[in-house]
Amino acid sequence: MKALQVGLAGFGTVGAGVAQILLEEAAWVERRTGMPLRLRCIADLDLERDRGLCLEGVALTRDAHSLCRDPQIHVLIELIGGVEPARTLVLEALANGKHVITANKALLAAHGGEIFQAAASAGVHVGFEASVGGGVPILRCIREGLAADRIVSMAGIINGTANYILSAMEEKGLDFPECLREAQAKGYAEADPSLDIEGQDTAHKLAILVALAHGVQIRPEQIFTEGIQHITGRDIRYARELGYCIKLLAICVARGQELAVRVHPTMIPCQHMLAKVNQAFNAVYVTGVHSGPVMFYGQGAGRMPTAAAVAGDLVDLGRSIGSGCTRRPHPLGFYQDIQPRPALRSTEDLVTNYYLRFPVADQPGVLARIAGVLGAHEISIHSVIQQGRRGRGPVHVIILTHEALERNVQAALREINPLEVMRSPALLVRIEHAVD
Amino acid sequence: MKALQVGLAGFGTVGAGVAQILLEEAAWVERRTGMPLRLRCIADLDLERDRGLCLEGVALTRDAHSLCRDPQIHVLIELIGGVEPARTLVLEALANGKHVITANKALLAAHGGEIFQAAASAGVHVGFEASVGGGVPILRCIREGLAADRIVSMAGIINGTANYILSAMEEKGLDFPECLREAQAKGYAEADPSLDIEGQDTAHKLAILVALAHGVQIRPEQIFTEGIQHITGRDIRYARELGYCIKLLAICVARGQELAVRVHPTMIPCQHMLAKVNQAFNAVYVTGVHSGPVMFYGQGAGRMPTAAAVAGDLVDLGRSIGSGCTRRPHPLGFYQDIQPRPALRSTEDLVTNYYLRFPVADQPGVLARIAGVLGAHEISIHSVIQQGRRGRGPVHVIILTHEALERNVQAALREINPLEVMRSPALLVRIEHAVD
Repeated sequence: MKALQVGLAGFGTVGAGVAQILLEEAAWVERRTGMPLRLRCIADLDLERDRGLCLEGVALTRDAHSLCRDPQIHVLIELIGGVEPARTLVLEALANGKHVITANKALLAAHGGEIFQAAASAGVHVGFEASVGGGVPILRCIREGLAADRIVSMAGIINGTANYILSAMEEKGLDFPECLREAQAKGYAEADPSLDIEGQDTAHKLAILVALAHGVQIRPEQIFTEGIQHITGRDIRYARELGYCIKLLAICVARGQELAVRVHPTMIPCQHMLAKVNQAFNAVYVTGVHSGPVMFYGQGAGRMPTAAAVAGDLVDLGRSIGSGCTRRPHPLGFYQDIQPRPALRSTEDLVTNYYLRFPVADQPGVLARIAGVLGAHEISIHSVIQQGRRGRGPVHVIILTHEALERNVQAALREINPLEVMRSPALLVRIEHAVD
Repeated sequence: MKALQVGLAGFGTVGAGVAQILLEEAAWVERRTGMPLRLRCIADLDLERDRGLCLEGVALTRDAHSLCRDPQIHVLIELIGGVEPARTLVLEALANGKHVITANKALLAAHGGEIFQAAASAGVHVGFEASVGGGVPILRCIREGLAADRIVSMAGIINGTANYILSAMEEKGLDFPECLREAQAKGYAEADPSLDIEGQDTAHKLAILVALAHGVQIRPEQIFTEGIQHITGRDIRYARELGYCIKLLAICVARGQELAVRVHPTMIPCQHMLAKVNQAFNAVYVTGVHSGPVMFYGQGAGRMPTAAAVAGDLVDLGRSIGSGCTRRPHPLGFYQDIQPRPALRSTEDLVTNYYLRFPVADQPGVLARIAGVLGAHEISIHSVIQQGRRGRGPVHVIILTHEALERNVQAALREINPLEVMRSPALLVRIEHAVD
């Protein structure tokens, strides 16, 4: 092969970044790859908008499927996003013997198994480094760097929007709605931010991390998922007082053949490496049996970091073709026993410490009432912060528990929330030991 | 190929760890590789010592060269360390068509070019992930993950012994000799710690990082190198007062075609990610044009983290052979223009802020005298800490400079050090902006 011919589907922010690297840094990329990478064709519905690039010699089309049929194209870069029509396009490309590189976490989380199978049948490569952690080569590290190790736990900050909001709440002492508006104004959050703040985007990426670490395919809807929308500036301040930060973590803990997989706001000790990950930065903290803790940190999103990750996958593919590879390594790096149905441990069985905030009426006996219900559910109290009286609103009773069983905590809250002294439902934040 | 046959030269701490993974976790490693990895033969001068492993079916020999001649062996793992006889052994293995995996940073720093050339001629693979950063897949991240990016700067904490000592000085408020003794007692420092504390080990690893990031081979003796042996508990305390930590950093900054490459104790802001890297942990903070800052963190040494990195290289090699590769990707990931003689910028041309500590006689007029010399060399003062009088010893004048040229600072110190008021030579610590 004289040059790797590239078709690019999706000419948005990241797509334009990839085109920029391929067009403006062709000599450098060729030096790293061992062969030229030629951007042959770009497909997008909007071909009018100026992306500030000189596209001489690049064909443009509104029909992404034509890239799959072009016999000159070796590799399709899919940057359309979302499940359809991306899924159909990717499967068509694979069926036509094209390699595929994608940044599409929603697609891989929902249909990774089908896509990897189609790639294996066609003997082509699927690269997806950019789907998790943007410019941080987390997937490669897990699949290749830690390949000989067994991963015990992973805890990741893998949604930049949620981390930006929580960091802003912490730094500025503001509440969630103000920080969300600020994130939207600065372009860190979308107009509809629900995928980011409610945790689904994090769950999509966690499904990919779990597949790479354990060789199992789980569906995002199997992942226990809670967002950050109920966290208040008050919780951040109390957490800090107790020596903790609150982060939206993607967590996977292995015990024997079972995996506990969950996404939720989490209290971690302020001196932990993950607690230092602020703004829109991402980090994944992976603990291996042999390697011990390893952390990867960097910009988890943005045009150029993500584009560099996509281009890195292209370089890798070019090197592999240049080495005369006739078969492709398994995309997950597991060659046997991909378990279609892994054993997942229910979050109900979690044992950890809990931060509980109860917005209550300002009247005597409330703490005794709450503590009584907790005690009846075998939840013992580590410490209590009771806010002094202030104006007309509810007062807040904060309880930090000793280790307790999630099932018991949920049962206690179901009993406490309807009490007439409660002004709104209790807030629960788990304290994470997997990151210790 | 039905199985990858492995010969292991060097059955010390890491060698025994590699043997443990290959023997006790064979099924897992096979699942990750796509073929079995068979430990065929171990060579070491000491075959009597019990390593707590069942070596049934593994041949043992005192003659490492016999591994190079064994036609059954596909890959030699070199864990002897040091330049010779490791160099001769590795070249013999390559000449005989064996792949080589090594953790030997001293060898690669001094003879990497020769070894990579020999591997290319023989069409075999050289894996060396374990040579820098132990269990942290730093090299793979630079060569593959960031392959499409251009690296602007790197700042690494890549010697666990030096970092352990500096962390202990910081945490316990003790001086260098006590912390060195503690590190030796705990096994973090060797009986002769000079390679670690004087910075040469860091320089060896930096030469490898520079080769991977920029495709150039530099010799360790071309790297400006200062150790940590002159840093006192007092310096750590003053640094902290000024908002800084002191770390032994390996630094490479690219500007145009020039590289500034140096190893020295460095003051970095306390809130920087690298400042949180304590104990024997390692981290490399890499800034790419597109990716922005990326950091890799973990255990940089120790039996099992290093063994897992060696075994990871074996898995990688097995996957590549299983994919039918007939040629090998370049070990540095640069396919053209490896520059044999890169342009190195002299540390004399560095412009940065300096921390200067002057141990002086307790008498009037000293500060004026020192400030006068600094001023005459165009060094302007940002702030001064002057210690109050205390007993008979020298007092210490601490000066933080504005940005100044290293050449001027060195000239000023050459003039100040012989002054009769100086009780011992001034100490200089550079403040690093490359990590910002």
